[in-house]
Amino acid sequence: MKLAKVIGNVVSSIKTDSHRNMKLMVVSPVDQNYQPIGNSFVAVDGSQAGIGDIVLVIEEGGSARQVLGKSDAAVDAVIVGIIDELVE
Amino acid sequence: MKLAKVIGNVVSSIKTDSHRNMKLMVVSPVDQNYQPIGNSFVAVDGSQAGIGDIVLVIEEGGSARQVLGKSDAAVDAVIVGIIDELVE
Amino acid sequence: MKLAKVIGNVVSSIKTDSHRNMKLMVVSPVDQNYQPIGNSFVAVDGSQAGIGDIVLVIEEGGSARQVLGKSDAAVDAVIVGIIDELVE
Amino acid sequence: MKLAKVIGNVVSSIKTDSHRNMKLMVVSPVDQNYQPIGNSFVAVDGSQAGIGDIVLVIEEGGSARQVLGKSDAAVDAVIVGIIDELVE
Amino acid sequence: MKLAKVIGNVVSSIKTDSHRNMKLMVVSPVDQNYQPIGNSFVAVDGSQAGIGDIVLVIEEGGSARQVLGKSDAAVDAVIVGIIDELVE
Repeated sequence: MKLAKVIGNVVSSIKTDSHRNMKLMVVSPVDQNYQPIGNSFVAVDGSQAGIGDIVLVIEEGGSARQVLGKSDAAVDAVIVGIIDELVE
Repeated sequence: MKLAKVIGNVVSSIKTDSHRNMKLMVVSPVDQNYQPIGNSFVAVDGSQAGIGDIVLVIEEGGSARQVLGKSDAAVDAVIVGIIDELVE
Repeated sequence: MKLAKVIGNVVSSIKTDSHRNMKLMVVSPVDQNYQPIGNSFVAVDGSQAGIGDIVLVIEEGGSARQVLGKSDAAVDAVIVGIIDELVE
Repeated sequence: MKLAKVIGNVVSSIKTDSHRNMKLMVVSPVDQNYQPIGNSFVAVDGSQAGIGDIVLVIEEGGSARQVLGKSDAAVDAVIVGIIDELVE
Repeated sequence: MKLAKVIGNVVSSIKTDSHRNMKLMVVSPVDQNYQPIGNSFVAVDGSQAGIGDIVLVIEEGGSARQVLGKSDAAVDAVIVGIIDELVE
């Protein structure tokens, strides 16, 4: 699972059916110091996340469908938690 | 899921059966500012996308087969939406 | 599977149900000389690991659910062992 | 899916059973201009490809087994087409 | 599938049950000229490989469990062959 910062919302009128009532968010992976690492990508929101939140993202279709409760969802990444802090 | 720009169409007479009536497109991943990031790859079109469109691509076999409605399709990446805009 | 060093614990009050009683740890991949390689990520602890341990991490949903004994767990990475040494 | 150039054949007397009658080829990923990008890897030939061909490679176990018609094949990458041209 | 060189054996007393009678080896990916490319990782030995061997590694859970004949094995990478040579 990746730590990431939510940096945007995706707006697309042409989309696959299973995305209809989903909030697609642009996330930028971060390290343990919340510094950006790697390329941004898109995840479905499963935690009522907002722009600027540091979140936990799973990149696995089976888990994504399980979290969203939609066995036919075409999803390969989902936000599954909002981070309060990292304790070292 | 990745944001990507459609940059070409693939033409190949020798192909696996399940690709027969599929449009294979070359896509180049982009970031939230639509700047290129990473290497181009090939995705099946599931949204009537065209060259130059900014699209949403899923890279997961299960989702790809689900979007295309073909349980036997040999596909690991599919275009599932066309982006209107990204709201920050 | 990856070798990694445990560098932190994740604290998040908002999380998906299947994460309720799980310990989420931040791990940093290391090479055969225990030097850091690549970006840190988050794995579920399946071996009672502690901060500073060098561990073995599997990044595959099916294996992760099997190790944790939870067929509905939304997990794509799990700590499956603590390394004593690497013999060359 | 990736575009790649076939650069070699693998010869190995010690191999897993399901590889017995398979042609394993070394492929080097290329971009839309057929320039090398990234590290070479090994794929099973599913299209009677030859050295120097530009091919389409799927890196997903389910698709690979489906293309080869072998439900028990230990394969995670298969050549599924030979590229004629890319039209921009 | 990746070409890799075997560079070590993993010793860990604390491990998940399905790893009990498995030989875990540290492997370093190599290119077609057997030069190192990318980060080392850990694979289960499925071919009686030894230190210094150039091997073929599959990184896919389904294939790994199939090769090892253990449907419950928590494994995402397995050595499936020992390379004699690469013919260009």
